[in-house]
Amino acid sequence: MLLTTDSPRSTAAPARLTPDLLAALAARFGAQLSTALAVREQHGRDESAYVDVPPPEAVLFAESTQDVIDLIVFADAHAVPVIPFGVGSSLEGHLLAVRGGISLDVSRMNRVLAVNAEDMTVTVQPGVTRKQLNSELKGTGLFFPVDPGADASIGGMCATRASGTNAVRYGTMRENVLALEVVTASGAVVRTGTRAKKSSAGYDLTRLMVGSEGTLGVFTEIVVRVHPLPEAESAAVCSFPSIEAAVRTAIHIIQAGIPIARVELLDANSIRMVNVHSKLALPESPMLLMEFHGTASGVKEQAETVRMIADEFGGGSFEWATSAEDRSRLWTARHHAYFAAIQSRPGCRAISTDTCVPISRLAECLLESVDEADAAGLPYYLVGHVGDGNFHFGYLIDPNSAHERRVAETLNAQLVARAIRLDGTCTGEHGIGMHKMDFLVQEAGIEAVEMMRAIKRTLDPKGILNPGKILDGK
Amino acid sequence: MLLTTDSPRSTAAPARLTPDLLAALAARFGAQLSTALAVREQHGRDESAYVDVPPPEAVLFAESTQDVIDLIVFADAHAVPVIPFGVGSSLEGHLLAVRGGISLDVSRMNRVLAVNAEDMTVTVQPGVTRKQLNSELKGTGLFFPVDPGADASIGGMCATRASGTNAVRYGTMRENVLALEVVTASGAVVRTGTRAKKSSAGYDLTRLMVGSEGTLGVFTEIVVRVHPLPEAESAAVCSFPSIEAAVRTAIHIIQAGIPIARVELLDANSIRMVNVHSKLALPESPMLLMEFHGTASGVKEQAETVRMIADEFGGGSFEWATSAEDRSRLWTARHHAYFAAIQSRPGCRAISTDTCVPISRLAECLLESVDEADAAGLPYYLVGHVGDGNFHFGYLIDPNSAHERRVAETLNAQLVARAIRLDGTCTGEHGIGMHKMDFLVQEAGIEAVEMMRAIKRTLDPKGILNPGKILDGK
Repeated sequence: MLLTTDSPRSTAAPARLTPDLLAALAARFGAQLSTALAVREQHGRDESAYVDVPPPEAVLFAESTQDVIDLIVFADAHAVPVIPFGVGSSLEGHLLAVRGGISLDVSRMNRVLAVNAEDMTVTVQPGVTRKQLNSELKGTGLFFPVDPGADASIGGMCATRASGTNAVRYGTMRENVLALEVVTASGAVVRTGTRAKKSSAGYDLTRLMVGSEGTLGVFTEIVVRVHPLPEAESAAVCSFPSIEAAVRTAIHIIQAGIPIARVELLDANSIRMVNVHSKLALPESPMLLMEFHGTASGVKEQAETVRMIADEFGGGSFEWATSAEDRSRLWTARHHAYFAAIQSRPGCRAISTDTCVPISRLAECLLESVDEADAAGLPYYLVGHVGDGNFHFGYLIDPNSAHERRVAETLNAQLVARAIRLDGTCTGEHGIGMHKMDFLVQEAGIEAVEMMRAIKRTLDPKGILNPGKILDGK
Repeated sequence: MLLTTDSPRSTAAPARLTPDLLAALAARFGAQLSTALAVREQHGRDESAYVDVPPPEAVLFAESTQDVIDLIVFADAHAVPVIPFGVGSSLEGHLLAVRGGISLDVSRMNRVLAVNAEDMTVTVQPGVTRKQLNSELKGTGLFFPVDPGADASIGGMCATRASGTNAVRYGTMRENVLALEVVTASGAVVRTGTRAKKSSAGYDLTRLMVGSEGTLGVFTEIVVRVHPLPEAESAAVCSFPSIEAAVRTAIHIIQAGIPIARVELLDANSIRMVNVHSKLALPESPMLLMEFHGTASGVKEQAETVRMIADEFGGGSFEWATSAEDRSRLWTARHHAYFAAIQSRPGCRAISTDTCVPISRLAECLLESVDEADAAGLPYYLVGHVGDGNFHFGYLIDPNSAHERRVAETLNAQLVARAIRLDGTCTGEHGIGMHKMDFLVQEAGIEAVEMMRAIKRTLDPKGILNPGKILDGK
């Protein structure tokens, strides 16, 4: 049976914060605590298509690990949910207060605590954003590669096991987080991992926490790996006669073992929307946007091999961008695809798919889903981190139309079922949130989900940490 | 306080297998079950320095997932420990039956179940060894890079989060295991992960299981990543006037971002032992053994840069090995260092250290420890995966000399304390086993170890899965 999520499971949650509890919080936190409606509403919204969940009952702006500990000890004592919040760019309802409670905003914990350039590690507080981090790394010869598009917080990226355009070469947050400081549901401060590059010291708590979406602990410090800026970089776009030709080119690039730094698919819809939004004149046919990193001669060698592969599949000529400015313009276009799409239909919300399959299954998975989307008649755009087998349809729905929502969710469910059948996953990088809990059961099986539930119950017996996410129930 | 492990904590464990239980097992498993002393003794020994732990009470040679399930359901019902066993090459007492019970030998589960060459993934049973896997991959253009030296089983490597010489470029088992089939303490079959390259679908159970040393579940299927054979490969050795010069060369190679495939340190002691054992005539001074993978021009470029760095630190001329045969001879010498060392002192056992530190701390950590070892007067050898900040002293002790054991363990404890002070780990790749449980507490802190304990209790409430390892108590 395919389970679809027509609407959020929870409507108005019972209030957890009595006036007495609020007064106690205010006494401890003063102006760091807000119950203003505008602030609460801003924290009760993300980039998902959910529109009818009431905002959190209060927002706490944490400024230190001690603030986080004190809030959590309080919340645990009174069984009040706590929902960690970075910049609000998540896509699956992760930030919504479906059981009421307090939004824990960590954006003021935004200091880069240590740059160990000679070890290529950086220690940050969770509210540091990826652009801020890269800006603070200027002059060190290093950069932080994980790039989900939005200027997300490192804490949020850690929580959703984010990745993005560069992951094909540099890996995801799974590979790029070395160590954490985590406040658990009991208020304990746990340090996981070390700055050593590898370790066999006991259970891999770091990897257990990365991707736990705020349900097992709140990150207060994060050690990430950073990478040497490549000696040479160049980017190119290449148009293709069909999506299939573009996808098959990407598959061949990966199978040839070329260490390409980015290889992104944009369909003709996306390019049309981006052209309007960013005042560009890109040819409106399927396109691969590629980037090469390495030594000067290595980049040249990679690009030549890729050009030969693209030729085989009828790719057009390569348009090159070697200056940092040109490259940035190209990638801005890619990064703005989501906003360009949203603005192409005023008032719409995007329901974004996120399947990821083994590279040999990519063409089958993607092309069948394009046919289905075309037949359904909803406006959509399609972009993909195709080198990783990961792609996103964004179905642009009127959030108040139950019909459109149902059509989009049916397309999503069919796509997920297909990806799972092809040995893939329902989510390559966005996470489960509220939206994919049934898909998780389909994908992982009830035994694995039961193991996750057992871990959750053990580490958060009262279910105060971001309840209603990943796992149904607590 | 430094805690040293002078001797195994457990001597004779009470028998768990009554004649009735043994009869029931024999009825189910027939000739797959052995209680012969020779077989039990072979399964009650590893490459650690423990010599006085009684062997397991029985050995089961599992041939299928169903065998594993049936044994574990039986063991759980009767509270009998189960200790998974691959080829017996682990180093920290992982395989010893310190609480009695049954050794679960998976060496007959040695089929390669699927080679998905176009996705660069392979699905194996746990008893497949790394050499067997690479031999079955011949002709596919792919190889499995993780190489701990011994011809370990993939199951065992997964259990200890193993790595080895190639990890500096290709990562460890943490990065190279995509998915697992695991039988849990309740006999449930849990599938973790998928063949997709990345996923954000719930808690990362795969990474929780990798490195769990048989204490959370028994692996029955493992999906690993394999890699394209490089277009070109070459290996070189280079001698240095001092360990410091060799180590500083390695540090510079890594900090320059050169994607070197292997960079191994051997000290003069190791080379002396290897020369005797393998009838070689390598110059008996500190040496780096290096390997370069890439395109023909890429390999040349890397090698040239590395030669310039080595020059700066007084390295001698490079001796090249480009033919597969010459490379294999060189690496055989490195891989035989352990056996060469053991044979250099008849009857001895090696106590092997395994610290790993951030690369900028490597020289300090390693050189101070060399001084200490020299001052202590025990024979030793020193080898290192120095590109990862990981190195091994092997102190060659008479296992019956309490004095020598104490001297070696004191050196080990001092080294571990130093590594932890330098933001590193007590174990880069060997695991905790019985030997480093106190070090784990020093390194991770009591709060993190309590979290590990909570997970262990939840997933294995009766403590039947390899008890007495990683975590004290159950």
